[in-house]
Amino acid sequence: MSAQILFYDITSTNPTPWSGNTWKTRYALNYKGIPYKTVWIEYSEIEARSREVGASPTRKKPDGSPNWTLPMIHDLSTGAVVADSTKIAAYLDATYPDTPRLMPPGTTGLLRSFEAAALSLLSPTLYQYIIPGTYKILYPPGQAALRRKREAMFGKRMEDITPKGEEDVIEWKKVKDVFGTMDEWIRANGEGSAYIMGDAPCYVDMWMAAYVQWVKQVVPDKWEDMKLWHEGRWATLLHDFEKYETVV
Amino acid sequence: MSAQILFYDITSTNPTPWSGNTWKTRYALNYKGIPYKTVWIEYSEIEARSREVGASPTRKKPDGSPNWTLPMIHDLSTGAVVADSTKIAAYLDATYPDTPRLMPPGTTGLLRSFEAAALSLLSPTLYQYIIPGTYKILYPPGQAALRRKREAMFGKRMEDITPKGEEDVIEWKKVKDVFGTMDEWIRANGEGSAYIMGDAPCYVDMWMAAYVQWVKQVVPDKWEDMKLWHEGRWATLLHDFEKYETVV
Repeated sequence: MSAQILFYDITSTNPTPWSGNTWKTRYALNYKGIPYKTVWIEYSEIEARSREVGASPTRKKPDGSPNWTLPMIHDLSTGAVVADSTKIAAYLDATYPDTPRLMPPGTTGLLRSFEAAALSLLSPTLYQYIIPGTYKILYPPGQAALRRKREAMFGKRMEDITPKGEEDVIEWKKVKDVFGTMDEWIRANGEGSAYIMGDAPCYVDMWMAAYVQWVKQVVPDKWEDMKLWHEGRWATLLHDFEKYETVV
Repeated sequence: MSAQILFYDITSTNPTPWSGNTWKTRYALNYKGIPYKTVWIEYSEIEARSREVGASPTRKKPDGSPNWTLPMIHDLSTGAVVADSTKIAAYLDATYPDTPRLMPPGTTGLLRSFEAAALSLLSPTLYQYIIPGTYKILYPPGQAALRRKREAMFGKRMEDITPKGEEDVIEWKKVKDVFGTMDEWIRANGEGSAYIMGDAPCYVDMWMAAYVQWVKQVVPDKWEDMKLWHEGRWATLLHDFEKYETVV
């Protein structure tokens, strides 16, 4: 079947896609088996290309002005343009009801609360590692755009964001504790649970796997440590999802 | 049927129970229709009585020492003593499988993430209203204990915790925004959703209703405002749950 969905992802010098946000959608599309094709965009051109395709802004900038982010999909069979990985997941479930569901009926609100909880834990801990890691693999125009955006948010030079020495030990332990909390949530359904809802994966598992991919791709030395955490939970999760890693 | 569960709640001068934490368990017991009897404890005696019954500590104090909190149940038919409303909910579902479920299969981990998200939003906003409100209705020994505990946490005198004047307007708006976020999570399943998982209530709805009760009981002037929020969402929720409000 020919591609019916254009899936917008961010280009880089890394051989493998790296964005934890676009990985959520790639996992979802591959899991559902919907034909699609990736369109690679420069990080610095996300806003221009999103406006061109007609996407709605997904966020606000700190100054209150609209912000466009990836992932975004353009479904050629319906004409719909959808940005934001969680909105895309809801769209795919609604539009392709005969494919495996990403969110079991009734769980969309709980999923949104998961996302709020996980992001509030990951933002102050993991981002100080993955943002400078991302910077290293972008092309120069993307690097300049990322530096502008993130230096304003962190109030630090890009080179000073990742903790070093003893501070690294303390901060990386905090990251481990956040993943420990997510590990507890998964185990809340029973000690042997592989996924947050038990035996079958749902969008929340793809969400977590996407963040783990981000670590693996942009801070590979930290990934060597993370692999061993929580009885190998995160390495096992990525291994389980290898079948949904296809890049097309 | 005679009571088989002793349910520990906190006494006060208020004619109606007020604790947003114990309300979670009262709603759960009434929803399930399990016979129980309330044991009323002075706020200042929670630790001593919990130790006496043999409960495990539920939290840690800021200095790292163990902390005991209510609700707690003592199930006379199994001998189990369980503290912490979410653990109690899981216990009741597992031990009384023929009663209506509080958490649909597979949702326990998502429920835990909901709780983390909601608490992280409510703690810095709503607590500055409901803690001093609670102080007003406790008996003197409980007042002294609450003052000691909460003045240390807020770094303020009890009398100075609730914002006044213009600051009140700003801070109460933040509380509204937090409830607005929970309203969005409920609506994520469809605009007409009454509950977070759609048409049937689950433990998360009892969790939210319990917090709304707390507001209604200890800051009744603020409840008059909250009633009108989000198309009457919170007033409707309490109204729907009136049938589970029985105090025995």
